[in-house]
Amino acid sequence: MADLADIVMDEAALNRFLEEFFQQVAGEFTVEEVTSDGIRIRLVVQDKHLRPGGTVSGPSMFALADVAVYLAILARIGPKALSVTTSAALDFMRKPVAHADLVAETRLLKLGRVLAVGDVLLYSDGMAQPVARASMTYSIPPAG
Amino acid sequence: MADLADIVMDEAALNRFLEEFFQQVAGEFTVEEVTSDGIRIRLVVQDKHLRPGGTVSGPSMFALADVAVYLAILARIGPKALSVTTSAALDFMRKPVAHADLVAETRLLKLGRVLAVGDVLLYSDGMAQPVARASMTYSIPPAG
Amino acid sequence: MADLADIVMDEAALNRFLEEFFQQVAGEFTVEEVTSDGIRIRLVVQDKHLRPGGTVSGPSMFALADVAVYLAILARIGPKALSVTTSAALDFMRKPVAHADLVAETRLLKLGRVLAVGDVLLYSDGMAQPVARASMTYSIPPAG
Amino acid sequence: MADLADIVMDEAALNRFLEEFFQQVAGEFTVEEVTSDGIRIRLVVQDKHLRPGGTVSGPSMFALADVAVYLAILARIGPKALSVTTSAALDFMRKPVAHADLVAETRLLKLGRVLAVGDVLLYSDGMAQPVARASMTYSIPPAG
Repeated sequence: MADLADIVMDEAALNRFLEEFFQQVAGEFTVEEVTSDGIRIRLVVQDKHLRPGGTVSGPSMFALADVAVYLAILARIGPKALSVTTSAALDFMRKPVAHADLVAETRLLKLGRVLAVGDVLLYSDGMAQPVARASMTYSIPPAG
Repeated sequence: MADLADIVMDEAALNRFLEEFFQQVAGEFTVEEVTSDGIRIRLVVQDKHLRPGGTVSGPSMFALADVAVYLAILARIGPKALSVTTSAALDFMRKPVAHADLVAETRLLKLGRVLAVGDVLLYSDGMAQPVARASMTYSIPPAG
Repeated sequence: MADLADIVMDEAALNRFLEEFFQQVAGEFTVEEVTSDGIRIRLVVQDKHLRPGGTVSGPSMFALADVAVYLAILARIGPKALSVTTSAALDFMRKPVAHADLVAETRLLKLGRVLAVGDVLLYSDGMAQPVARASMTYSIPPAG
Repeated sequence: MADLADIVMDEAALNRFLEEFFQQVAGEFTVEEVTSDGIRIRLVVQDKHLRPGGTVSGPSMFALADVAVYLAILARIGPKALSVTTSAALDFMRKPVAHADLVAETRLLKLGRVLAVGDVLLYSDGMAQPVARASMTYSIPPAG
């Protein structure tokens, strides 16, 4: 396993990467911290993320978990690789707090040459209990 | 198991339900057919569903699979129940065709009193091989 | 995608393969039919597969789904490849019938160069409703 | 959420429960510690758990993850409830060390009235990197 503490893109670099290459979701996601074994990402909640009642929608939670594991990988392997999600498994456990941001605490469990696995706990900002958990697997294309 | 062929909301009723209660996704999803054991739903692809390169994003595929199983349930139990997704598992298998609609072929595998399970194959419109598969579980709250 | 109808190991060849290389589970699994898009495998229920009450245990259902997708792949690529399971997702939907065999109806959804995906419905022998569903992904090592 | 630190069955009580009610797996699993938010369980590896090459089989890993979440729940709600697994998602990330025990580090993420969710990291005894991860959902039948 690659050394997860060997960071090649920090918070600022990842946020610039998002702005440049994912303009469609510009302003939605903020990298808060590249941690020793993963990353913490914030979904800055906007109207389009909400369901009736003001809680964050399932697809928005999926999107947050997906981008969180993706950026946790890129922080270690750099912006050159075109990784793609191959599998995802999620459990929705509690109703998110209305209109609150979601924070994704992510850890990389495997960062191999061809496959990466991460898991994520999603929290309504400031809450102690997670609203959802997710695990995502990514396929990493060969270099060069 | 409830008789899946016992339909209480047909295509027109489900499409009206979407328009009325899910205005945030108005025009995105169309119920094409309530089938003997499930439902077929179309994602009418718009710019916001696309990733760079023009293929449908992962969150949009999640959203389609989620609404597909939800509406397959409602077709049998009616609009009164407030079902919520509890678990989801997806495999992303092929790159969707650029700018093509996605079609979700859904079958209900279980429709119990408190839990429903459905699985979905997602196709780029007109293609023979699915781009993704999904299974979703829903919790059905007690009546009354 | 490889042509799923291009079979290189038939039922007899797969059953011999099981006997030779998986002696630890000898007699537990029988290949009943290599189908046009998958395979049908039987778990010949023995005491060790049962939970108190006489129903098949979760681990035995996992084992059946796992071997089913594995053999569906081998039927198409032959006995040389050492595939390994990378992900599994299962939903347990009904209590199996006590002391009844389980039958796994399997379809391969993707058979790529490096990744294969299959899904499985598990039935108590003779029943119309599945007791469980499973999807499994396999990593296929490069040839040679 | 029930207070996870409110333990009604300790290690000795859970081990006695296993011996009494799960004689089919007697001696396979040992409760090592009921932790503040979960449990640690050991699979005492026997020949029947191994694949050719001496590594622990997928079904044995499933069995360990399943019993781990089950016992983490029982430690909090006591032996009276008959919980059943409804969903499972696993990622197999590394080859287990040959002939080594497996240790399951488990945390309960939700312990609701009707649904519980736990996730598990599985380690070959003494290793720093997990061989697999799992999440399991359990349905808890109504009391009385």
